[in-house]
Amino acid sequence: MDFSSDTAAPAHPAVIEALARVNEGNQPSYGNDSVTGDLRASLARVLETDDFDYWLCASGTASNALALSCLCPPTGAVLCHEEAHIARDERGAPEFFSGGGKLQLLGGDGAQIDEAVLREALARIDPGFVHETPAQVLSLTNLTENGTAYPVEQIRHYASLAHEAGLSVHLDGARLANALVHTGATAAEMSWKAGVDVLSLGLTKTGAIGCEIIILFGQTRSKFAELKARAKRSGHMPPKMRYLAAQAIAMFEGDLWLSLAATANQRARQVSDALCRHSGTLLVHPVHGNEIFARMDDGLASSLREAGATFYPWPGGSYRLVTGWNTPETVIDTIGSL
Amino acid sequence: MDFSSDTAAPAHPAVIEALARVNEGNQPSYGNDSVTGDLRASLARVLETDDFDYWLCASGTASNALALSCLCPPTGAVLCHEEAHIARDERGAPEFFSGGGKLQLLGGDGAQIDEAVLREALARIDPGFVHETPAQVLSLTNLTENGTAYPVEQIRHYASLAHEAGLSVHLDGARLANALVHTGATAAEMSWKAGVDVLSLGLTKTGAIGCEIIILFGQTRSKFAELKARAKRSGHMPPKMRYLAAQAIAMFEGDLWLSLAATANQRARQVSDALCRHSGTLLVHPVHGNEIFARMDDGLASSLREAGATFYPWPGGSYRLVTGWNTPETVIDTIGSL
Amino acid sequence: MDFSSDTAAPAHPAVIEALARVNEGNQPSYGNDSVTGDLRASLARVLETDDFDYWLCASGTASNALALSCLCPPTGAVLCHEEAHIARDERGAPEFFSGGGKLQLLGGDGAQIDEAVLREALARIDPGFVHETPAQVLSLTNLTENGTAYPVEQIRHYASLAHEAGLSVHLDGARLANALVHTGATAAEMSWKAGVDVLSLGLTKTGAIGCEIIILFGQTRSKFAELKARAKRSGHMPPKMRYLAAQAIAMFEGDLWLSLAATANQRARQVSDALCRHSGTLLVHPVHGNEIFARMDDGLASSLREAGATFYPWPGGSYRLVTGWNTPETVIDTIGSL
Amino acid sequence: MDFSSDTAAPAHPAVIEALARVNEGNQPSYGNDSVTGDLRASLARVLETDDFDYWLCASGTASNALALSCLCPPTGAVLCHEEAHIARDERGAPEFFSGGGKLQLLGGDGAQIDEAVLREALARIDPGFVHETPAQVLSLTNLTENGTAYPVEQIRHYASLAHEAGLSVHLDGARLANALVHTGATAAEMSWKAGVDVLSLGLTKTGAIGCEIIILFGQTRSKFAELKARAKRSGHMPPKMRYLAAQAIAMFEGDLWLSLAATANQRARQVSDALCRHSGTLLVHPVHGNEIFARMDDGLASSLREAGATFYPWPGGSYRLVTGWNTPETVIDTIGSL
Repeated sequence: MDFSSDTAAPAHPAVIEALARVNEGNQPSYGNDSVTGDLRASLARVLETDDFDYWLCASGTASNALALSCLCPPTGAVLCHEEAHIARDERGAPEFFSGGGKLQLLGGDGAQIDEAVLREALARIDPGFVHETPAQVLSLTNLTENGTAYPVEQIRHYASLAHEAGLSVHLDGARLANALVHTGATAAEMSWKAGVDVLSLGLTKTGAIGCEIIILFGQTRSKFAELKARAKRSGHMPPKMRYLAAQAIAMFEGDLWLSLAATANQRARQVSDALCRHSGTLLVHPVHGNEIFARMDDGLASSLREAGATFYPWPGGSYRLVTGWNTPETVIDTIGSL
Repeated sequence: MDFSSDTAAPAHPAVIEALARVNEGNQPSYGNDSVTGDLRASLARVLETDDFDYWLCASGTASNALALSCLCPPTGAVLCHEEAHIARDERGAPEFFSGGGKLQLLGGDGAQIDEAVLREALARIDPGFVHETPAQVLSLTNLTENGTAYPVEQIRHYASLAHEAGLSVHLDGARLANALVHTGATAAEMSWKAGVDVLSLGLTKTGAIGCEIIILFGQTRSKFAELKARAKRSGHMPPKMRYLAAQAIAMFEGDLWLSLAATANQRARQVSDALCRHSGTLLVHPVHGNEIFARMDDGLASSLREAGATFYPWPGGSYRLVTGWNTPETVIDTIGSL
Repeated sequence: MDFSSDTAAPAHPAVIEALARVNEGNQPSYGNDSVTGDLRASLARVLETDDFDYWLCASGTASNALALSCLCPPTGAVLCHEEAHIARDERGAPEFFSGGGKLQLLGGDGAQIDEAVLREALARIDPGFVHETPAQVLSLTNLTENGTAYPVEQIRHYASLAHEAGLSVHLDGARLANALVHTGATAAEMSWKAGVDVLSLGLTKTGAIGCEIIILFGQTRSKFAELKARAKRSGHMPPKMRYLAAQAIAMFEGDLWLSLAATANQRARQVSDALCRHSGTLLVHPVHGNEIFARMDDGLASSLREAGATFYPWPGGSYRLVTGWNTPETVIDTIGSL
Repeated sequence: MDFSSDTAAPAHPAVIEALARVNEGNQPSYGNDSVTGDLRASLARVLETDDFDYWLCASGTASNALALSCLCPPTGAVLCHEEAHIARDERGAPEFFSGGGKLQLLGGDGAQIDEAVLREALARIDPGFVHETPAQVLSLTNLTENGTAYPVEQIRHYASLAHEAGLSVHLDGARLANALVHTGATAAEMSWKAGVDVLSLGLTKTGAIGCEIIILFGQTRSKFAELKARAKRSGHMPPKMRYLAAQAIAMFEGDLWLSLAATANQRARQVSDALCRHSGTLLVHPVHGNEIFARMDDGLASSLREAGATFYPWPGGSYRLVTGWNTPETVIDTIGSL
């Protein structure tokens, strides 16, 4: 019963098999191999467009920071939620990659930016006032850090507000599949169709070894050469790129990534339901994806631990439990029997 | 006949098998897994010491730049050969990771720093002269960018000169195994026993998918917390580290990495001999490892290409041919028959 | 009636005279001149200690950012008030100088950090948790951005809390003289005696042309060589330093800086009183120094403007009026007569 | 007899008088004052054009680094002479301001870039090769670090080569007046008419307190907003800018700057002649401006020192002697009499 993180799970066997399959013969280095080339077709299907460029890296932190560094100059700022991963959990990666840019933190329930707060932040931007750092990017996260999902319409609305104010829009999709499964939206609807300019599409938490895709849409494709230069310079241009591309192709094949996310989401609901059957359990946020934030009786928390469960206490007195593609259905009975 | 680069080769099957083997069950994230822990014993055997800390990353550029950024402050400089990979082929990674540090480029034949040039550079350092950037690190490369190997005694001598001048010593070992095989030295003799403070030990070019190890020796271990913070912040703390560690363990097991390098080195000598049997071929540098730098008749170059060989022209009018662990012995007859 | 800013004022005549006086003969460059040397004695008197090093620069932004960059590594954060000048008005200078460090913004009334908020931020620091950026510096501002003054005891208390948590303490003293006059404390009591490690002592707003002094106290003096290297590298090592030092000496002579601040503070109180005599005027913050933050009737605001007054509207619906050393007493009658 | 540096000289009295003159009444801050505005007309006359934007700072290092940071992205490089001030004497300022850009050092006699070396460097640029940092700016220096002057035609020629290769052209004019006096060219002929995109026009060494002007010509004016943001963020937007502008206006009035440089140049020739009358003296570089690089008998060097002269030994066994606007004519007789 490991609820510590979805990154604690192993990779799905199909991913390992894909690595074995592409482990044949020589291939050009640094992304010029045929596997990385083949990924374009997979992505075009998933994203329902050809108007994109993409880059692969093994780290979600790098995926976000590289994307942001192409949109935000050192003299600019990124608007994001105050609990966003880029603000809380990446040890200053956006500041590092952007050369000293800022994050401007916005509030809102459930790790979702409040609309009034966003409007106020956008209204305050005055690029002519040289003393204050102007926001130049809006970064949203779906699934959010609190396990909630922005509906597509809200992303579209926020992107539209951002664009009107002259900002670009980035979507941190480290758990995009979980949000897609919950909302029923397609990856296209959740990204470029909603106005997202750059998507950090994560597959690691979904079931890959380590595979994140930075996708530049439409006009933002003009940043592709810069993105590659920044990737090279930051050590995110692995010579044998085919092993990243193979993971992505395996995950998209037959929409495996969505199936895995569906399982993880379902388990989270089941675990959440099982926990809520114990008196004293209170969900702090609705369970939209594969993360549960709940207050629990000390007794229940202890019983869970005694039963072998691992999970983290969370700021504010709750606990976080995360399910993964491989969380077994048996945990539900175990929790029920405590 | 792919002589374009050793990074064009696939991984050795043992590496893929190792990934499959560790792909079981959940493991703590971010390097706290048991596989990453197990790597310590492998490294201790290979390095003949326990006095080290280590970090894994998938990129040689990151391995070098992270190592250097812990030794060189933004106000300092790194001494290296003017053809060093960190100077020529990493798109300014050392400058980026160090926050604007400098590389001070030194000359010397065969991509090896000339002793007189090194002594002059060391003598010029005046930390009290605030206007000029003082060198604080010496970075050596073995195998060098020209495929030659520094003997252990020379590394020890240079490290000693550097230490006397107050500098730290970094060794870029992207092709360390090839240098070890050529010189007959052990990894310990070539690194900490010779005075190397930080080693970037590369396994990707030797036969891994993407696996580089940063090793801090002795007193430099005090930089380990900083190294991890810098790794996190630059996207080089992959959540599922076990898949990096498994590659390393597989490569060290039974000294596979040395066997693979021995094969590559032998092929390079054989290819070199075969080329030299054609009149007009001239080796620009001695072939110590798996790289050949040779001038060739246009006719021979064309025949090679017609026979399916890929290789790059090199600045100065020569060609570079690189062999790998998987270069088949048949290429020798093919070249002989041209 | 210019209430736009104290930086709109000219320099006090004594400052110009001081420049003329040192404009004789040649002097060593880059701070090695005798005038810069003489400043040590002035500072020792003002600071009641010899245990300090100092550096001069013409910019308050540089004075803060250079100081912070010696205390906060790129992987660290600075705690400051959310309205602090370093957060709001320096276009990301701390992030730039520190190489991508972070500011962690804390709330509190009157631009003073709330103690409970500070304690919570300090308690949250976990340097062992590599994902989150740990605070390493506490930066206070006195006079604050809202024109209020921290009493010495509070600075001492906050510095003590910060030190216990392993942080260094920086004091942004762009309007230090105004705070000293209000509290009756000496510069020593407000700085090193209260636990301040690095003081950015500003004289520009007080009446110099452009003169700010970075002062490292006690153990922080070990950073002096780094400070000079960072100053050089950022263009804050002017070759003819004597003209900066002369300004400082003139300002400290006979405690001119305190007299000028006393005048400015007195004018602010008088202006504030005069404004409050008009119905509908409400002070948003107490007037401790030379800044007034007040809500006013539209009518009064218009009358002031018609009478030739310049001042800025402030976020939240109030106005900011700033007095300077040269604000004439006549403004009181003018305001009274509106 | 101070030949240590032209920065050891005091300011010309007209500069101090100008400060006193503008020290009246309040003025808007941060460059919005009328004096800074008035400077435009002076500059338009000196530069023979209206097609420029300008920014003032007190430091030559900042003037160069700010200019370069607007032209060179973090992923790019600046071509300059290996003895250029930006490479040797600014402690990594270009790397810092550009966010980790590189300097690519070129050889050539007399601190002037050799044409063949320049052509080779330009030919090697391949922006499509992501691994290597492409040069994006050519930075020239006039007067050079060796006291020689590029003729206008050579600057025009080099600028034309650079532009053809897609680079921008920066001119470090810390001693521009000395070069203008020597060549007889106007500031316009030496800058925009010769293809210079950004000029760092120095007045400090010529006789100001500390006054350097960054001038963006033609299309490069599109970088003006970025320049201001970078100036703010690096502490080079002094609140009381009028005192910088007043220095510049005073220096341009009646072409004072050229008169002062003419005097310094004449003194250098006279001192050089006087030294050469002593046997054993050998000029290492022609004396075009106010700097003499000469080998001297130990006896002469000692006699000079005994006579009270200060000057520095220079790498390569020579000495550097620098004259200034205030070097008295009497030094010639003194040297003659040794």
